[in-house]
Amino acid sequence: MSRTIIRGGLVITATEEIRADVLVDGERIAGLLAPGAAEHWDATARVLDATGHYVIPGGVDAHTHMEMPFGGTFASDTFETGTRAAAWGGTTTIVDFAIQPPGGSPREGLDTWHAKAEGRCAVDYGFHLILSDVGEQALKEMDGLVGEGITSFKLFMAYPGVFYSDDGRILRTMQRAADNGALVMMHAENGIAIDVLVEQALAEGRTDPRVHGQVRHPLLEAEATHRAIQLSRVAGAPLYVVHVSAAEAIAEITRARDAGLDVFGETCPQYLFLTVDELARPGFEGAKYVCSTPLRPAEHQASLWQALRTNDLSVVSTDHCPFCFTSQKELGLGDFSKIPNGMPGVEHRLDLLHHAVVEGRISRRRWVELASTTPARMFGLHPRKGSLAPGADADVVIYDPAAEQVLSAETHHMNVDYSAYEGKRITGRARTVLSRGEVVVDDGRYLGRAGHGRFLPRDTCQYLT
Amino acid sequence: MSRTIIRGGLVITATEEIRADVLVDGERIAGLLAPGAAEHWDATARVLDATGHYVIPGGVDAHTHMEMPFGGTFASDTFETGTRAAAWGGTTTIVDFAIQPPGGSPREGLDTWHAKAEGRCAVDYGFHLILSDVGEQALKEMDGLVGEGITSFKLFMAYPGVFYSDDGRILRTMQRAADNGALVMMHAENGIAIDVLVEQALAEGRTDPRVHGQVRHPLLEAEATHRAIQLSRVAGAPLYVVHVSAAEAIAEITRARDAGLDVFGETCPQYLFLTVDELARPGFEGAKYVCSTPLRPAEHQASLWQALRTNDLSVVSTDHCPFCFTSQKELGLGDFSKIPNGMPGVEHRLDLLHHAVVEGRISRRRWVELASTTPARMFGLHPRKGSLAPGADADVVIYDPAAEQVLSAETHHMNVDYSAYEGKRITGRARTVLSRGEVVVDDGRYLGRAGHGRFLPRDTCQYLT
Amino acid sequence: MSRTIIRGGLVITATEEIRADVLVDGERIAGLLAPGAAEHWDATARVLDATGHYVIPGGVDAHTHMEMPFGGTFASDTFETGTRAAAWGGTTTIVDFAIQPPGGSPREGLDTWHAKAEGRCAVDYGFHLILSDVGEQALKEMDGLVGEGITSFKLFMAYPGVFYSDDGRILRTMQRAADNGALVMMHAENGIAIDVLVEQALAEGRTDPRVHGQVRHPLLEAEATHRAIQLSRVAGAPLYVVHVSAAEAIAEITRARDAGLDVFGETCPQYLFLTVDELARPGFEGAKYVCSTPLRPAEHQASLWQALRTNDLSVVSTDHCPFCFTSQKELGLGDFSKIPNGMPGVEHRLDLLHHAVVEGRISRRRWVELASTTPARMFGLHPRKGSLAPGADADVVIYDPAAEQVLSAETHHMNVDYSAYEGKRITGRARTVLSRGEVVVDDGRYLGRAGHGRFLPRDTCQYLT
Amino acid sequence: MSRTIIRGGLVITATEEIRADVLVDGERIAGLLAPGAAEHWDATARVLDATGHYVIPGGVDAHTHMEMPFGGTFASDTFETGTRAAAWGGTTTIVDFAIQPPGGSPREGLDTWHAKAEGRCAVDYGFHLILSDVGEQALKEMDGLVGEGITSFKLFMAYPGVFYSDDGRILRTMQRAADNGALVMMHAENGIAIDVLVEQALAEGRTDPRVHGQVRHPLLEAEATHRAIQLSRVAGAPLYVVHVSAAEAIAEITRARDAGLDVFGETCPQYLFLTVDELARPGFEGAKYVCSTPLRPAEHQASLWQALRTNDLSVVSTDHCPFCFTSQKELGLGDFSKIPNGMPGVEHRLDLLHHAVVEGRISRRRWVELASTTPARMFGLHPRKGSLAPGADADVVIYDPAAEQVLSAETHHMNVDYSAYEGKRITGRARTVLSRGEVVVDDGRYLGRAGHGRFLPRDTCQYLT
Repeated sequence: MSRTIIRGGLVITATEEIRADVLVDGERIAGLLAPGAAEHWDATARVLDATGHYVIPGGVDAHTHMEMPFGGTFASDTFETGTRAAAWGGTTTIVDFAIQPPGGSPREGLDTWHAKAEGRCAVDYGFHLILSDVGEQALKEMDGLVGEGITSFKLFMAYPGVFYSDDGRILRTMQRAADNGALVMMHAENGIAIDVLVEQALAEGRTDPRVHGQVRHPLLEAEATHRAIQLSRVAGAPLYVVHVSAAEAIAEITRARDAGLDVFGETCPQYLFLTVDELARPGFEGAKYVCSTPLRPAEHQASLWQALRTNDLSVVSTDHCPFCFTSQKELGLGDFSKIPNGMPGVEHRLDLLHHAVVEGRISRRRWVELASTTPARMFGLHPRKGSLAPGADADVVIYDPAAEQVLSAETHHMNVDYSAYEGKRITGRARTVLSRGEVVVDDGRYLGRAGHGRFLPRDTCQYLT
Repeated sequence: MSRTIIRGGLVITATEEIRADVLVDGERIAGLLAPGAAEHWDATARVLDATGHYVIPGGVDAHTHMEMPFGGTFASDTFETGTRAAAWGGTTTIVDFAIQPPGGSPREGLDTWHAKAEGRCAVDYGFHLILSDVGEQALKEMDGLVGEGITSFKLFMAYPGVFYSDDGRILRTMQRAADNGALVMMHAENGIAIDVLVEQALAEGRTDPRVHGQVRHPLLEAEATHRAIQLSRVAGAPLYVVHVSAAEAIAEITRARDAGLDVFGETCPQYLFLTVDELARPGFEGAKYVCSTPLRPAEHQASLWQALRTNDLSVVSTDHCPFCFTSQKELGLGDFSKIPNGMPGVEHRLDLLHHAVVEGRISRRRWVELASTTPARMFGLHPRKGSLAPGADADVVIYDPAAEQVLSAETHHMNVDYSAYEGKRITGRARTVLSRGEVVVDDGRYLGRAGHGRFLPRDTCQYLT
Repeated sequence: MSRTIIRGGLVITATEEIRADVLVDGERIAGLLAPGAAEHWDATARVLDATGHYVIPGGVDAHTHMEMPFGGTFASDTFETGTRAAAWGGTTTIVDFAIQPPGGSPREGLDTWHAKAEGRCAVDYGFHLILSDVGEQALKEMDGLVGEGITSFKLFMAYPGVFYSDDGRILRTMQRAADNGALVMMHAENGIAIDVLVEQALAEGRTDPRVHGQVRHPLLEAEATHRAIQLSRVAGAPLYVVHVSAAEAIAEITRARDAGLDVFGETCPQYLFLTVDELARPGFEGAKYVCSTPLRPAEHQASLWQALRTNDLSVVSTDHCPFCFTSQKELGLGDFSKIPNGMPGVEHRLDLLHHAVVEGRISRRRWVELASTTPARMFGLHPRKGSLAPGADADVVIYDPAAEQVLSAETHHMNVDYSAYEGKRITGRARTVLSRGEVVVDDGRYLGRAGHGRFLPRDTCQYLT
Repeated sequence: MSRTIIRGGLVITATEEIRADVLVDGERIAGLLAPGAAEHWDATARVLDATGHYVIPGGVDAHTHMEMPFGGTFASDTFETGTRAAAWGGTTTIVDFAIQPPGGSPREGLDTWHAKAEGRCAVDYGFHLILSDVGEQALKEMDGLVGEGITSFKLFMAYPGVFYSDDGRILRTMQRAADNGALVMMHAENGIAIDVLVEQALAEGRTDPRVHGQVRHPLLEAEATHRAIQLSRVAGAPLYVVHVSAAEAIAEITRARDAGLDVFGETCPQYLFLTVDELARPGFEGAKYVCSTPLRPAEHQASLWQALRTNDLSVVSTDHCPFCFTSQKELGLGDFSKIPNGMPGVEHRLDLLHHAVVEGRISRRRWVELASTTPARMFGLHPRKGSLAPGADADVVIYDPAAEQVLSAETHHMNVDYSAYEGKRITGRARTVLSRGEVVVDDGRYLGRAGHGRFLPRDTCQYLT
C-alpha cells in the first residue's frame, strides 16, 4: 500500500510540539522521524509538504446527531453530508448517537443507525447509544453492546415523555455500567421542573425563542448535574456530563473531581463563543440558537474557559444537530417549545478552538488535547485515534495557522441553511486532511468519498485505570 | 383570673440567664421582676418555688405525627395520649401534620385533623399540612390556609406512590409559597432511587431491619437536599429541611446558608443519640429503630452536633411517630420495607437535649433556643410561644437540672410498648409545667386535662425579615 | 434611690419585640411588665413616655481609641469628649484599648489608660489591652490582668516597628490565652508585605491618599486572617478579628466557622457605608478616609452585609479613632503613609445601623444584637450590658425610629473637624439615653457628666461555653 | 556518531502506550517507528532488545541537594556519587539547588555549585537557586541568571536565621519573577511559629526525634502554603510548592488551582510511603527519618495519592539530601532540632512510583508524567528531557516491570549508611539506562563516568502559556 511522508511541519500533540516528519504506511502512522531522516525510510514515498503548518491528529467529535429525529423532523445532515463537513473541518472521527426507539430495544436502535451510516461516511465513526426506555431487557443488552464496541450510553434527565429517564432508571443503568465497564453520559437538566416553567410561560403568552433561555434555568442544570454525580457515587460508576454550559454546573463537576471521583465534563463551541443574547434576535431568528442546554449569559463563559484550562471540563464536542431555519426551526413559530433543539457545528470546532489559541485562551497542545486526544481516550479509541504515534490510524490534519476565513452558510459544507457564526472572522484552517492514510481534503478540494469511513468498535473509557 | 409568681429560679431564655421572678396573670406572662420585687406586684398571687431550678419557656415540638396512618396502621399515640406525654416532658406546644388525603383536598385533610385533635389535647397545638397530591386545586387552597394559620406545607421527595411529589409539583408549591408566605418543609430523600435499592435488596433476600439503613443511602439524602435547595432558589422561596441525619446533607445546607439563602435544617434526638447499629439488634428488634431518614453510622453525629452549634441546623424536633413493636412494627417481619416508619420521642426531647448540656455539647441558652424559641419563631408562634416575655403565653417549665431518671417503656407516658432509649440514664427533668398559666404537671403528678390545649393559628415564618 | 418606668414603647432585644414597660430601680433594670401593670409596681416612679418609640439596651462599642497616640499625634477625642459623643448616639458602653508602651509592660499601659479615663467618662467603659511587645513578662502579666477584668488582648499583624507582632509572639500569646481564658483580638493585615508596597509606591512618587487603598491589598487582609486562624487552631484558642473589610477575609472566617471553630469577626460602619472611592476625593480630602484596614471597592459591601446576616460577622464596632483634618491628617501631605490612620464614628453607629434597618438590610432585632447584645457577650459584659433583663444595668435608649437627621461636623458632638458622612440624611435617632438609671441625654439636651461612667471589669468571652 | 535501535519494548510516555522501536542517533532521539521498520532506517545500528520491557524517558528529579551544607555538615552524596546513584535508578536529569551564601550574592552561590558539579556528574544536571538573602543586589542578579538558564528560585518560610525570607522578601522576589519569568519555589512551613514550638519542647525536655514530627504542625504547613499563594497572587507570579506533605496544605493548593491560578505542588516518595511513626523508632533511629516538611500521620497519604491523581500535585521529586546516621544524624542526639534535616532517595524514586503502579494507585502513563515529563516541562527542559519525541535527548530507560528487588543500604549506590526503606520489597527495576545516547547502566553494571553529565541551561516554566 502507499506510503506518505508529511514533511517539515510542527507536529503538535497533547504533550509535544516538535519538528518532525510523520511517516504514513497505508492506513497507519509508521513513525515519526527527526527532520532529514525520512528519505532513508522510503525515498519513493509521496511527500506532503507541511512547512509553515501544524501537523496534528485528526479531530474527534464525540457528540453528533446526524439525521436525528426530533419533534417530527430530522436533523438536516445525513451521515454522508455531515461526515463530509466534518472532514472539511479536520474532524476525522465522529461518535454519533444511536437511539433506542420508544418501546423498542437498544439493539434495534443500533441496527437502525448502522443502516443509516454504513457506506455513507467520509470519515470513521462510532456509536453511543441513547437509552430512552430503561427496562430489564435494555439493561441486559448493554453488556453485549459493550462487547461489540458500543461502550457509552446516554441518558436524559430532560425531555419527559421523550428521552427522559427517572432517577431509578438512571441508577439501574449506572449500576449495570459499574459492572460492564460502560460510561454513562448524561444530559443533565431537570426536565420535570423545566417543563413546569415552559407550561407557565406558554400560559402567560411568552412564546418567542428568548423564553427558551429563561425556562432552562442554570440552577436546573446545576441541580441535575449534582444529582447525576450522587447517583453515580451510589452506583460506583463513572459519569460523563454532556454539553455543560452553566457556571453552577461546572462548580458541581469541580467539587466532584476535587474529591477524586471519575466525573468528566464536556462543553461545546456554542457555549464558548455565543451567549443567550442570540435568542433575542429580532423576529424569529433567535430560533437558530435554540439548543439544550441553552446558551447562557456572557458571564458563564469565563467559567467555561477556566474549566477547560483546569481540566474540570476535558472535552469540546459539537452536539452537532442542525435543523434548517426555514421549515424546521419554524415548526416552533408561536411556541418556542416546539422549535427543534439543536445547532450545526461539526465543521468548525477545530477552527473555533484554534481561534481561542490565537486569542491566548488555551495553548496549542491543549487545543489538540480537547479536540482529539481526550475524546479519543474518553471513548476508548486511543491510541488508534487522537494520536500521531506509530501504529495509530493515519488520521492527520495539516493545519494552516495563518489562514483567515469568514464563517458563513454560503461557504460551509454542512447541509443547513444558516450558520450560527455568520460573518465571524477567524484565523486558522485545515489545509490537508488524511483519514486512515487517504487524503480526503486538500487545499480547498474534497477528495474523499462516502463509504471510506468505517465503523469503530470502541474500548471502554481509558481514564478509569 | 388567677395570678402566679414563679419565684427564685434561674430564668433561661435563648439569650439570657438571669435571676428573676416570673409573673403570670391568667394565661399570659405578666412580667419579669428582679428577685424580691414580685410581692409588690401582687401579694396574693400563688407562688411556685423554683429555687434551685431553671425556669424556661415550654418546649415547642414542631414535628409530630399523632394517629398518623402509615402502611395500613396508625401511629399509636392519639392527640390525647401524645400531648399528655408531651406535657410530662415539658413540651407545651406541638405542631402536628394534617394530611391531604390521596385524591382529596388539603382542606379535607385539615378538617379531619381538626376533628381528631379538638377537645383532646393537653397542650396547645398547630398544624402543618402534608401535600400528597399537588394540583391546581391544592395550590389554590394554600393561600386560604395560610390565612387561617396553616403556614407551612410539607412535601416528600421519598415514598413514591404515597406522599411523593415530583420536582414539578415541588416547584409549583414553592412558587406558590413564594407568593403567599408559606414555608415549604421537605422530607429530602431520593425515594425513586431508594425504591430501586429496596427492590434489589428484597430480590436478593435481604429482608431484615438492618437493610433499611443500607438502602436509604446518605448520598441520597444529600442529593435530595441539594435538589430541594436549588428548586427553592428557582422559586424564590425559603426551605425547611426536616429530620436531617446525614453529614453530607448538612454540608449542602451549610453551603446554602453560607450563600445567604433562607434554608433551615432540623434534626431529631434519635439521630443525635442513636446510630445505625440499633437496626442490627438481634431478632427483629431492629424494627423499633426503623424511621426515615434512617439512623446513621456514628461518625455522622459529630457533624450533627457541630451543625447545632453553628446554627446550620437550627431546630430539634422529634418526628414523634410511634408504632408498637408488637403487632405494628411486626407488620414488616420478613420484609423490612413494610415496617411502619417512625419512633416515639415527644416526651423526652427536652431531657435528652438537657443531657447534652450536661455533657457539654451545647449551652443552656442554646438548649432553650433549639427546643423552644427557634421552632416557635420558625413556625410563626413567637413571641406567644418560645418566650418568657410579658405578653407571651404562660407556657413555663420549672426544670430540675439535677434530677436523675432512667428512660423506660415502663415509666414513660407515651402510648407505645417500647422505648428507643430503654435503660438510658440521663440527668434533668421537668418538675412543674404550666400551659397557658395552668399547672398541668407538677412533681410527678399529671394535673392537666384533655381539651385544655387549643388550636394555634400561626403567622408565617419569622426568620424571613 | 430613684425609680423610673419607661412606658408605652416597643421593647426590642436581640430576640424579642414586645409591648412592655421597663422598670428601673436605681442603677438597674427591675423588671419588664405587660402594659398597664407598671403602676402597681410603683405609682410614684418617674415615668418616661416611650409611645411610638423603640426601647432598646444601650449600645456597646467594643472598639474605640480615645486619645490614642499615633504617628506623633493623638486621637482628637478624649475620654471626656468621646464618651459624651457616644452617649449622644445611644452608646452607653465603650471598650477602649490600653496600650503596652514600647519597652514597657502591659500593666504600665493599663495604668496610663486608667489615669486618662478615670473621672472623665460620661458612660461606662472597659479596656482591652494592646500587646505591642510580647515577651515573657508580658505573657505572665496577662493572667493577672484577666483576673482584673482585662480579658481581651489585641495583636497587630500590621505596622512593623510599631505594634507588629511576629507569628511566634502571636502563637505564644494565643497559647497563654488558651490557658487563661482571654480572647485574642487581631488586626489582620500582612504588614510586612504592605510595607514593601508602600515603599515601592513612595519610590514611584505615588504619594496621595488614594494609594493607601491600593497598597493595603484585600488579599493581604485575607492572608493574615487565614494565618491568624491557623495559629489560633495550633494554640487551641479563640480568635476575634477586628475591622474586617475584604470579601476574601470574610470567606476565611466563614470557612473557619463552618468548621466549628471559635472564630469571630467584627466590621465597622465605614466599611458598610463608604467605599475606596472616598480616598480619591479631590485635593487632600481623601485623607479623611484613611484608616486600616482601608475602605474597599463597593463590591465588598454585599459580602459584608451578607456576613452580618449569616453571623459570619457578629459585631459592628466603630474603631473610633478621630484625627482632625487640619493639622493632624495633614501630617501626611506628600506621603500618604504618614497620614494618621483612623476615622471618627462613635456617635453614629446606632443610627447608621438603624438606617440599614430602614433600608431592609437587617431586622430590628439583629440591629440590637449587632450593636449591643453580641459585643456585650463577646467581651464578658452580659447580662449587665446588652440586655434589658431584670438585674441588668439600666442602660436604656428610647429611640425615635422616625426622626430624620443629617450628619455633619457642624452638629456632631465628637471632637473632630470633619464628618465622614457629611450631608448624609438618615432616619432614626436616640431621643432619651439612660446610663445606669440616669438620663444622660434627653430630647437634644445633654444631661450627663464627666465621671458618671465607671470602669467595667469584664468576664471572659461568653461565646465559648 | 553511533546509532542505536531500542527494539521490541512497550513505549510509555505521559500520553501514549505503544509498541514501537525507538531510534537513537548520537545524543538524540531520531524517531519512533512501528515495529519492523527500524532496520530500514539503519541496518547497522546497535540494537538494544527491550522485549518484555517498558521504554520510558529518563527520570527527571527536580529536587536534590548534593553536598548541601546543613548545620555544620554536608549532605553525604557528592555530585559524583549522587548522580551515579540517580543513573542506577533510571533518573537521567537532576535539578539541584545552588545556594546564595549568607552575606553573599546569588551568583557566588551559583559559581560555587558549578565548581562542585562540573566534570563530576554521571547524568545531566541543572540548578535552581536558593535565595537566602534577598536584597536589591540579589533581585537584580535574578534577571541575568534567568538568561543563563537558572530559571527557578527557592525561598524558605522556614529556618529563621538560616534560609528564612520574610514576607516582604518573598513578595519582592515574586514581583521580580513576575517580570523575568522565573518560577518561585517555596518551602512552605511557618518557621517562626515552629521555632516557638521547638523551643518550648526543648525547654520541657522533649528532645527525641519524635518531637520533630509534633512541632512541625500540619496546619503550619497549610498556613504557609496559603500565605505563599496569596503573596503570589498579589505579585502576579506563578508558584511551585515543594515537598507538600499535609492534607491541609493540599487543600489550599486545590483551592488555588480550582480558581485557575498557576500554583503547582510537588510531593516526595517518603511522604507517600512512610509515616510519622518512623520517627518513633526505638533509640535514636527515628533520626533517619527527620526531614522537613516532616513525615505525617498515615491518614495524610490518601490525600497525597488522590492529589497525584487529580493533578493538584503534579510532580514527585526526592528532596534527596542524605546524612549518614553515624556521625551526621547523631549531631542531634539529645536535641532533635540539631538533627540534619534530610533523607536519601534519588536512586529509588522511579521504582517506588512503579511500585505504586503495581499496587494500582496510578497508571503507567501517570508514572512517567509525574517522574519525568511534568518536572521537565515545569522547569523548562521539555522536550529535550521528559520526552521520547524525535529531537529529544536520548535519555531512555529500558525498565523491567517484573524484576523484584529488596531495598537496602547494603545494595544501594547512594553514599549513605542507611536506607529509609530497608527491607522493603518492590517490583520493577531499570535494566538499561541511556543518557544522551550513551548506555550508563546495563543489567547491573555501571558503564557511565563522572563528567559525562552536562549542565543544562533551562527555559522558563512551560506551564504558563
